[in-house]
Amino acid sequence: MLDKNVAAAIIDAVDRGFDQQVRFTQDMVRIPSTRGEEQRVQDFMADAMASRGFAVDQWRLDVDAIKDLPGFAPVSISYENSYNVVGTYRPAVRRGRSLIFNGHVDVVPTGPWDRWTTPPFEPRIDGKWLYGRGAGDMKAGLAGTLFAFDAVRAAGFAPTAPIYFQSVVEEECTGNGTLACLQRGYRADCAFVPEPLEPKLMRAEVGLIWFQVHVEGDPQHASGFVSSGTNAIEKAMGLWPHIKALEAEWNARKADHPLYRNHPHPIRVNLGEITGGEWTSSVAATATLNVRVGVLPGARLSDIRDEIEARVRQAALDDPFLSNNPPRIEYHGHMAEGYVLEDADEAEAVLAESHAAVFGAPLQEEITSAATDARFFGLYADTPGIVYGPICERPHGFDERVDLDSLRAVTKTMALFLADWCGVEKSQA
Amino acid sequence: MLDKNVAAAIIDAVDRGFDQQVRFTQDMVRIPSTRGEEQRVQDFMADAMASRGFAVDQWRLDVDAIKDLPGFAPVSISYENSYNVVGTYRPAVRRGRSLIFNGHVDVVPTGPWDRWTTPPFEPRIDGKWLYGRGAGDMKAGLAGTLFAFDAVRAAGFAPTAPIYFQSVVEEECTGNGTLACLQRGYRADCAFVPEPLEPKLMRAEVGLIWFQVHVEGDPQHASGFVSSGTNAIEKAMGLWPHIKALEAEWNARKADHPLYRNHPHPIRVNLGEITGGEWTSSVAATATLNVRVGVLPGARLSDIRDEIEARVRQAALDDPFLSNNPPRIEYHGHMAEGYVLEDADEAEAVLAESHAAVFGAPLQEEITSAATDARFFGLYADTPGIVYGPICERPHGFDERVDLDSLRAVTKTMALFLADWCGVEKSQA
Repeated sequence: MLDKNVAAAIIDAVDRGFDQQVRFTQDMVRIPSTRGEEQRVQDFMADAMASRGFAVDQWRLDVDAIKDLPGFAPVSISYENSYNVVGTYRPAVRRGRSLIFNGHVDVVPTGPWDRWTTPPFEPRIDGKWLYGRGAGDMKAGLAGTLFAFDAVRAAGFAPTAPIYFQSVVEEECTGNGTLACLQRGYRADCAFVPEPLEPKLMRAEVGLIWFQVHVEGDPQHASGFVSSGTNAIEKAMGLWPHIKALEAEWNARKADHPLYRNHPHPIRVNLGEITGGEWTSSVAATATLNVRVGVLPGARLSDIRDEIEARVRQAALDDPFLSNNPPRIEYHGHMAEGYVLEDADEAEAVLAESHAAVFGAPLQEEITSAATDARFFGLYADTPGIVYGPICERPHGFDERVDLDSLRAVTKTMALFLADWCGVEKSQA
Repeated sequence: MLDKNVAAAIIDAVDRGFDQQVRFTQDMVRIPSTRGEEQRVQDFMADAMASRGFAVDQWRLDVDAIKDLPGFAPVSISYENSYNVVGTYRPAVRRGRSLIFNGHVDVVPTGPWDRWTTPPFEPRIDGKWLYGRGAGDMKAGLAGTLFAFDAVRAAGFAPTAPIYFQSVVEEECTGNGTLACLQRGYRADCAFVPEPLEPKLMRAEVGLIWFQVHVEGDPQHASGFVSSGTNAIEKAMGLWPHIKALEAEWNARKADHPLYRNHPHPIRVNLGEITGGEWTSSVAATATLNVRVGVLPGARLSDIRDEIEARVRQAALDDPFLSNNPPRIEYHGHMAEGYVLEDADEAEAVLAESHAAVFGAPLQEEITSAATDARFFGLYADTPGIVYGPICERPHGFDERVDLDSLRAVTKTMALFLADWCGVEKSQA
């Protein structure tokens, strides 16, 4: 348990650095970083780490290096421009427990800019809210890890264990960024992922599967010179209710899950994207549905895939055209198991104390319908993956925003956690 | 009526030139010419016209020059690379009736190449069929106009009236290419459009309207942190059956139409393209349906537009979300009135005689569910617009193909029509 005066000094240092922290977060938001376009913000992060004296490791993702590891997800883009950055702090003498801070810089697409009150990559502050794509999910949390460290230093202390600051890509689509950190050998006694799931301890998260349903039609001239052909878009529309019906069936299974039993709606089956046809006056030749489904922790991904495939197959068999032209399923991203935080008593205790010291209230737990990269640490590296972060509204939506008051508090909690977990000593100088 | 020996000589000349005609048609098919990419094939056509001694007029389409003319359709691309070509043959002394041959070089997209038996822009002959995108619709017919002319010359005759060979763009989406020919002043006593509607006289064609339905959703994270949001794709799917229902209502009106009364299915409402969403794990922010509808001749386009808009509005009003977030309709292409060939007795008589001389059977008529550029001549230039062409299968589909036997016969009919309509004299030399 951290000395009260030490804690007070660190909390005070977070406050003193907070204006700069907000400016830094705005700088991050200002750099668009949708998938495959993260290089600029990663250069920015590498510079920020180097200026703190960290050893900076910046490398391009390599599918061949990770494709046989558990947790790998299919890749639908080139990783030519996909770089991870890890900055390592090493103490003069190691005494405490090592720590990984992990956050992702990739953000999801913005949708039409005219639906935003102000442009998504022009960070705007209004009251306690900072607006922008990625402001909440999750540039604020990732920036907070650096400023938590700064606060410990500014308060006159030096951590006494290694700390790895991981700035990763690919969280929104595969998780292969964090997987690549594991492959590269990064390990610690605890991993801390400040995703904006409220300042609560995430006890459990769902898994995810992404899949595409490719439907082929029998195209011809829209005027129907001879027959009407078969429109792939209409056939795909006909399949969708069958796929969507899985949501209710899967949610019903929460009754058997000790953690999700009382969750209102753990599983969502989302039609995120559709494409079909090429020409207004042609009967559509092809259509593709892009679907994201949640998976309860403990469920086997292969079982869920079998259910998806059987459902699409059965729906196709009930259609005269599709029974002879079966849709093709392709997995194009997330293939993530659910994750329950277990065997993490030490880390939980430190987080609970740190949180209580900042909030004056006990730490609560969260069971979430989302997924995070924390699963990699827990499932594949025997490392507690702590998820705890600021309040964010409308992630993936218009006018995404993060609550700066919560960010300030979460940064304090992270700084106290860091100091307590790693240990600190009075700085030289 | 054409002298029997003259006719026989011309028919013979078509046969002699037919191998070359097929090679020329293959050369045209080999040059991909989807919308906005027609420049290369237009250069090829201009060269072919120049080599025949025609005066060649090649110009870029100019929206400002045509946008206030009747028949203009909204444009969704830049015309930066959209060129028309007109080659003019002028007799030494004019005696006969002038003629426009009109055909389009633009072709519709191919769909996935792996669904074609051989690649769509590698023209392949198998038996009497020539395969390739645009082979039937309508490069064969357009090439045929040049070779009909060649046959008349090769038989030792010179036409005695001006002939305008129009190679236009934009037929598949707006008709603005042919409209631009009118705007530029091209007129004749008859226009002949060898669209592949079988070797029959097209008596009537439908009109067309293209429209887009833009739907906006309430996007957010697919995990449904707070609520499930509103998925624009699912909302668009819900609108489609309401729009599609117009097809049956409009087809029922054929009972009141003297020409379409017995047509099995004149009106098709086609969902040619759909786009929606940007990210598999985001609730889709937007979705767009691209729709083509046929319009019976005589119907007012403004009335049809009103019906479309009212139907979408009503469907939206019945939906709690869409009633507050009404879909937006945009007209992005065809805005074409239907057309009935009338007051064309002279041209019809010449076509009937020419056809009978080739086929040994009377000319039949066709009432079509498609539209052609012939409407511009009939509706806006007081010029009979004759449509008559070869047999094509699977236009806009995979393995589009044109019947070379029918092409040979149609070329003969066109050559005889040309000679009879324009008049011929023995060539000098």
